[in-house]
Amino acid sequence: MCRFVAYHGPPMELDELLYRPDHSIIDQSMHAEERREPLNGDGWGVGWYDRERSPEPALHKRVRPAWNDDNMRHVSPLIETSLYFAHVRAASPGLSVQQLNCHPFTGGTGLHERDADLDPVERGRRRLLFMHNGTLGAHREVIRRVRESLDDEFYFGIHGSTDSEHAFAVIQDELGRDVVDPSLDDLAAAVHAALERLETFRAEVDEEAGTQANFCLTDGESIVATRYATPGTAAQSLYVGEAGSFESGGEFCSTPDPEGTAATIVASEALFENDRVWRAVPRNHRVTVEPDGTVSIDPIELDLAG
Amino acid sequence: MCRFVAYHGPPMELDELLYRPDHSIIDQSMHAEERREPLNGDGWGVGWYDRERSPEPALHKRVRPAWNDDNMRHVSPLIETSLYFAHVRAASPGLSVQQLNCHPFTGGTGLHERDADLDPVERGRRRLLFMHNGTLGAHREVIRRVRESLDDEFYFGIHGSTDSEHAFAVIQDELGRDVVDPSLDDLAAAVHAALERLETFRAEVDEEAGTQANFCLTDGESIVATRYATPGTAAQSLYVGEAGSFESGGEFCSTPDPEGTAATIVASEALFENDRVWRAVPRNHRVTVEPDGTVSIDPIELDLAG
Amino acid sequence: MCRFVAYHGPPMELDELLYRPDHSIIDQSMHAEERREPLNGDGWGVGWYDRERSPEPALHKRVRPAWNDDNMRHVSPLIETSLYFAHVRAASPGLSVQQLNCHPFTGGTGLHERDADLDPVERGRRRLLFMHNGTLGAHREVIRRVRESLDDEFYFGIHGSTDSEHAFAVIQDELGRDVVDPSLDDLAAAVHAALERLETFRAEVDEEAGTQANFCLTDGESIVATRYATPGTAAQSLYVGEAGSFESGGEFCSTPDPEGTAATIVASEALFENDRVWRAVPRNHRVTVEPDGTVSIDPIELDLAG
Amino acid sequence: MCRFVAYHGPPMELDELLYRPDHSIIDQSMHAEERREPLNGDGWGVGWYDRERSPEPALHKRVRPAWNDDNMRHVSPLIETSLYFAHVRAASPGLSVQQLNCHPFTGGTGLHERDADLDPVERGRRRLLFMHNGTLGAHREVIRRVRESLDDEFYFGIHGSTDSEHAFAVIQDELGRDVVDPSLDDLAAAVHAALERLETFRAEVDEEAGTQANFCLTDGESIVATRYATPGTAAQSLYVGEAGSFESGGEFCSTPDPEGTAATIVASEALFENDRVWRAVPRNHRVTVEPDGTVSIDPIELDLAG
Repeated sequence: MCRFVAYHGPPMELDELLYRPDHSIIDQSMHAEERREPLNGDGWGVGWYDRERSPEPALHKRVRPAWNDDNMRHVSPLIETSLYFAHVRAASPGLSVQQLNCHPFTGGTGLHERDADLDPVERGRRRLLFMHNGTLGAHREVIRRVRESLDDEFYFGIHGSTDSEHAFAVIQDELGRDVVDPSLDDLAAAVHAALERLETFRAEVDEEAGTQANFCLTDGESIVATRYATPGTAAQSLYVGEAGSFESGGEFCSTPDPEGTAATIVASEALFENDRVWRAVPRNHRVTVEPDGTVSIDPIELDLAG
Repeated sequence: MCRFVAYHGPPMELDELLYRPDHSIIDQSMHAEERREPLNGDGWGVGWYDRERSPEPALHKRVRPAWNDDNMRHVSPLIETSLYFAHVRAASPGLSVQQLNCHPFTGGTGLHERDADLDPVERGRRRLLFMHNGTLGAHREVIRRVRESLDDEFYFGIHGSTDSEHAFAVIQDELGRDVVDPSLDDLAAAVHAALERLETFRAEVDEEAGTQANFCLTDGESIVATRYATPGTAAQSLYVGEAGSFESGGEFCSTPDPEGTAATIVASEALFENDRVWRAVPRNHRVTVEPDGTVSIDPIELDLAG
Repeated sequence: MCRFVAYHGPPMELDELLYRPDHSIIDQSMHAEERREPLNGDGWGVGWYDRERSPEPALHKRVRPAWNDDNMRHVSPLIETSLYFAHVRAASPGLSVQQLNCHPFTGGTGLHERDADLDPVERGRRRLLFMHNGTLGAHREVIRRVRESLDDEFYFGIHGSTDSEHAFAVIQDELGRDVVDPSLDDLAAAVHAALERLETFRAEVDEEAGTQANFCLTDGESIVATRYATPGTAAQSLYVGEAGSFESGGEFCSTPDPEGTAATIVASEALFENDRVWRAVPRNHRVTVEPDGTVSIDPIELDLAG
Repeated sequence: MCRFVAYHGPPMELDELLYRPDHSIIDQSMHAEERREPLNGDGWGVGWYDRERSPEPALHKRVRPAWNDDNMRHVSPLIETSLYFAHVRAASPGLSVQQLNCHPFTGGTGLHERDADLDPVERGRRRLLFMHNGTLGAHREVIRRVRESLDDEFYFGIHGSTDSEHAFAVIQDELGRDVVDPSLDDLAAAVHAALERLETFRAEVDEEAGTQANFCLTDGESIVATRYATPGTAAQSLYVGEAGSFESGGEFCSTPDPEGTAATIVASEALFENDRVWRAVPRNHRVTVEPDGTVSIDPIELDLAG
């Protein structure tokens, strides 16, 4: 279980949304309100893009709790970004608190050759960021099936032991080799197919087990997020916030800017109180944010094999 | 602000009390009940003695929260000890979360020559463990005065920046050069004199500021703990638990064993519910545990200079 | 690549061998002499037994370099043990420096229920410690095959991403469900069969790749260590040291004590200079230390499938 | 002892100089060539400026060795900066490996209120970065004298225990309250006066002790670096590199660009071989880099009190 926040909109300084809202992700690391246990102190991570400089995101993860990571405190005021992900972790029992197991995850093999003659698939995968709030039902057995179902290149991109990272590998596997520069539709289709594969495996392994899959995926341009739970299982909370801008001190408005520079947040919990900004995502729905900021919320209907 | 626990009694495995009680120090790191903020996740530490092997304690500290430190999980079942201290930290704003700033502290210079021809004072100081729950009022200015008041050898023993470590240096300074193998009375007198010095400095600097000084000190044989707060300031909670034994599954009893092998716990919060075991320490009182396990609770009456 | 040391003999304090020899494992973390790169600074670990207290080892691992881990400095003087493993890591390129990936590894699922009604197989696996110096040839593909070949219970015991941990899982898989309390012969047979399985996989994947497998395994009573390399590949160094005792200051002698309390060290590099104590293990040989301290060195002859 | 590098010049991506030169600071963390011990693995830090966004630097420090810090690996490609400091530490014996003790240091109290009504002195101090290679002779006693000589506001800015951070406090104390927006001359004068104060204290305490003070200070616009050692003490190495640009793959040239956009590096060791780029700074000389990139090297002549 965890909490996360994703931002898509006009460039702003990273510390603005990370630290300043009343119920920022930092506050949620200590005092989450919509899960039974308020504490998400088992490491955290932040990934962000600067598309003028690189299509690949920066990534900062630590096993320390978010609230006492003074590096991010001292780095974020100098970072300007128009798309970032942040995630605070509450490790499931038995899963290790390791930097490797912190979200968000990036694709690719994790090796560091920057200008090596990278395979375009590898290059494409490195553009992705993924984070997850929830657990896959019967996750150990599902993970084993997931691994067996993966192509080598996505199999070898798994470095940790979380169900979340394995779910991300399935998404990449669904994107496949041919989709190097995916559209929002490609990303959404891959997430959908991954949910189907994961739920099919889960049902094969344990009909009764329940999955909570609040996924959040980006390629640096679009965002696809889900609020999904197996029938009979409670879903984790998810909100969408929309405003002309989220600059602190700015006047928040619920109507997107007509010129299309509206700002969007997808978050486990609303970052501050303002009913004109936030709406709850219904259970088993998907949120998409297009490169131009257009937000849609659509139902998820899985077609489970068998 | 923090929470702590100290054990004095028959040898038992370290993990017994660390992990098993309902409201163990680990639970208090997440869900403290007697301070406004339940979270004490800014590092922790455990120190313990094995007097047959050495008069100096073992010490394990990490900046990770107590609840996800798998090293202590995997080490404590093999440790048998008749006296240990554990402390979970909630860093005061502006104080760094560093291993160095975690409690408990030991005396001495922190250098590692084991069989160097150590000065007996240095050797004596290394036997001590100290931990603190609370804050010194006007702590920055008080720390400066403390430093100026210290003999070199105790001044040079300070490695971090907490008010707590400075309070411990004052205690060592009060013990002085001549008391190499202190009795319980020596320890209690040093704690008393340190409280007076600290409160005198505090009053000189800021008459209105309030100090919370729940101190806990040991030389590996006796324990001196205080529940103290400046008049007008709320005191941090403190409890004493007494039983024939605290082995889990054992039958807890509130009357000390007639043969003097009774077990005592001094803790910020009771580790489990049992009114026959636990009693609250009154405000501005001192708890002492003698080498044979005899527990006394006496009022603290400071005589402040000026 | 890495360096390791294992001790089997009369109980002694853990810090004695960890810190005091001229070329201790701590020194080898900075200044290894028998590998091209002297540095082994990517985390470390120490595991030790206290059979009177538990059949399961204590385990302490950190991503910090061994030389600046002050916790072990302050804990090891209070630990007495008659069997311990220590390992300093030099991470292979692309493998993460995570506590999880540090050696030694223990068996079992890694969950923490101490007195849960543990399966005897799980209980047996938790008694094991394993460490490795070297790399498996074509390790990524071999790891995939390894995973596919494992029984669920050993598959689920893998938490990290190193080839070493996967090699250990194969050893456990070879021990199987039926061997709950293995003899030295059982352990040696499992190591042998695991080497064969790993080398068979390696040859299937890449005929040219070379494996270096200096393995070291214990159940808390016996030790099995190998110095193995694929034909055509250089082997990592390995030494056996034997003495009546390794207490510092004691007189080292090369002949085992007639009363059978002789002490043995198996180490990547000799811990100090003394030709009467140390002998190099020949390439493709196995060292075994029986519970009573008897040391044997025998050739390894693999029978590779196909 | 340590190694450091400072860059001043046209904006470039942070990873370029951090990771790519043959003998980058990362390489120097493992394989320094001009100190007896090649290893500088006790933590590291990087500070950089983005003057368009803020006058205060970003700061990233970790106790991990530089070579395995994957956060900086994944963050630095997105950072563009025209002035940065990086420092790899080899902790002096007895000084703790804590994030707090890693260089570079910033001024100010370390509290995090971003838009609090900050005192202009506090605001000015936060713009500074400082790092040090060397040790102050008789450092413990000198540190005590330093503390006693400081104004409260600089005294309270000290959070760790290194001689280096104390030297930086003296520099800030010399800058004083009145110099809020210092010129290069102000900075150079403060460094000079601090050296005199430190050397005077050192001589009072121990006439024979020797200080090595390779200091490096910036306000985000200019740099002042020293290569200083007490007479009779060997000086740590220091180099200046000048080129039109240090972009990798670019053609290095030793003559500054006529338009004044030349790039300068000040480093403990040359980052690559090219005699036209690098020159050794003579002992007891000072390097200054003006905001426009003009480099001067001048002798340091201390006038020691007494």
